[in-house]
Amino acid sequence: MALTLEQIQEAQKRIAPYVLQTPLLRLQNLDPYIGCEVYAKAECMQITGAFKLRGAMNKLLSLSREELDCGIVAASSGNHGKGVAYASKLLGAKATIVMPFTAPKIKVEAIRALGAEIMQCEVSERFEIAAKLCRERGATMVPPFNDEAVMAGQGTAGIEIMTQCPELNAVVVPVSGGGLIGGVSTAVKAISPDTCVYGAEPAALPRYSVSLKVRKPSKVEAKKSIADALVAQIPGNLCFPYVAAHTDGFADVEDEYLLKGWKLLVEEGKLFCEPSSAIGIGAVLQGLIPVQKHDKVCFLISGGSAALDQLDILKGVEV
Amino acid sequence: MALTLEQIQEAQKRIAPYVLQTPLLRLQNLDPYIGCEVYAKAECMQITGAFKLRGAMNKLLSLSREELDCGIVAASSGNHGKGVAYASKLLGAKATIVMPFTAPKIKVEAIRALGAEIMQCEVSERFEIAAKLCRERGATMVPPFNDEAVMAGQGTAGIEIMTQCPELNAVVVPVSGGGLIGGVSTAVKAISPDTCVYGAEPAALPRYSVSLKVRKPSKVEAKKSIADALVAQIPGNLCFPYVAAHTDGFADVEDEYLLKGWKLLVEEGKLFCEPSSAIGIGAVLQGLIPVQKHDKVCFLISGGSAALDQLDILKGVEV
Repeated sequence: MALTLEQIQEAQKRIAPYVLQTPLLRLQNLDPYIGCEVYAKAECMQITGAFKLRGAMNKLLSLSREELDCGIVAASSGNHGKGVAYASKLLGAKATIVMPFTAPKIKVEAIRALGAEIMQCEVSERFEIAAKLCRERGATMVPPFNDEAVMAGQGTAGIEIMTQCPELNAVVVPVSGGGLIGGVSTAVKAISPDTCVYGAEPAALPRYSVSLKVRKPSKVEAKKSIADALVAQIPGNLCFPYVAAHTDGFADVEDEYLLKGWKLLVEEGKLFCEPSSAIGIGAVLQGLIPVQKHDKVCFLISGGSAALDQLDILKGVEV
Repeated sequence: MALTLEQIQEAQKRIAPYVLQTPLLRLQNLDPYIGCEVYAKAECMQITGAFKLRGAMNKLLSLSREELDCGIVAASSGNHGKGVAYASKLLGAKATIVMPFTAPKIKVEAIRALGAEIMQCEVSERFEIAAKLCRERGATMVPPFNDEAVMAGQGTAGIEIMTQCPELNAVVVPVSGGGLIGGVSTAVKAISPDTCVYGAEPAALPRYSVSLKVRKPSKVEAKKSIADALVAQIPGNLCFPYVAAHTDGFADVEDEYLLKGWKLLVEEGKLFCEPSSAIGIGAVLQGLIPVQKHDKVCFLISGGSAALDQLDILKGVEV
């Protein structure tokens, strides 16, 4: 099975009753700062607060009733876990979300409130424990990115973007393992080959720019960055070929510029979003993505799972 | 001269090159909290961060070149001052904004950055000083609400709302002196007589609900509320008749509910907006505006001039 526009279109039909078509906002107030015509695909306004629901929903809708009845497992303390818990609840499946002991209580409670079982463990053991659960129960694992049904679901955001503004010159996508950009770049390039697709990843975790140089998924050292939703150390091996084939460049963004971008998105763009969402804006501010005054550039705002406390860090940021 | 839909339509044509058609957002994530289908007219995303630019722009565009060359004066430390300064700059007129000594430095600097002259004085003297300036210089005063050209400009938001979603059951508007709701209610009722228009004002300053009872503009005591953009003590005498004729009800909203509404708009709606903007949501939460599950209700989000510090107050709010 290879990921194609047709698969993404099928995913779109399949998940349409369960997800929102989020707005593509023309954020003119950001133009002078970014140097182009700024558009934002507001996935922070998606149900569960992030694009992740698209992939989780498509994956679960591709399972049989029997498979659903054997349960769903995911290892995630963030937006993916929330998306899987929500999708499972909708479809009457029992979800178990494996989360590290270190996960913030507010995130644990948000996922529990969606009816999921929570299993807490050491952070290093979470994938092993999730796999063991699947074996023991015959449950299905929903991977956060390395899965074609998940990628197809995320790609539906790409179809929406190109339908909402067909004349876009570029789309800039936050990147972790590559599920979102794998799906979105496949959709965008199939619909509009001249539209550029750029990835933006934390400079602390340059897994894609390193891997693209050596033409295979390569693991980078685990380091911290402000982009707390973009923590994959290695590209998904199923995502990598699509990303390699369909993207026009990658930006390794320093926290300093991500924070400036985040401040602009909140204060001037008026979007309450999570820091990882602002990495594309940060990439342009850092001079890593070429834009011109009349270019129409869409920044995918991947999620809105920010706590009010987190905004405190923006108070000292200069833009 | 009486304010009519035609005048508002003319205003719309006049100001179109200078203002944004802001998005009407379907904020589905708020539905379970508010109890209806929630729409938000995002004037926080307007240029200068508030609807105020519409009225200022329309007023200035109705002046002759000679009048513009004699200068523009406004007394305001907030969104109105910013709108007037920006509109004046666009049209090559010299603006003088009279602000109290107590105005936050950040607001003074924002208006100065738009090229306006700043004149600071005691808060009680600001209108007198502004009037004196107009007399001395032959300059034109742009009132914040009590002016038909200003009202017609604000009313363009109403035309946009009804064009963006013609089947709305209700529109809820934050109210101070009545310029916004005067214009918006005139437009909405002319386009769609069955759509309800509700005003929401701070319970601490119930100038409209008091005045509507006695059928004439009546002054209320100056009191503080969280709604720092809604401080008028008396309805504009030019606004009052339109508001009386075209609205279906008024809500006097307690700060407690305004804060809950603000928290929901930011955390669930993902809109970074100013507290006054949330007063309509607060009105429904307080049980003051009747809504039903399948009602489509538009909340006019009047502005986004919030400082990050202000959000601190939301940390302890329960919704």
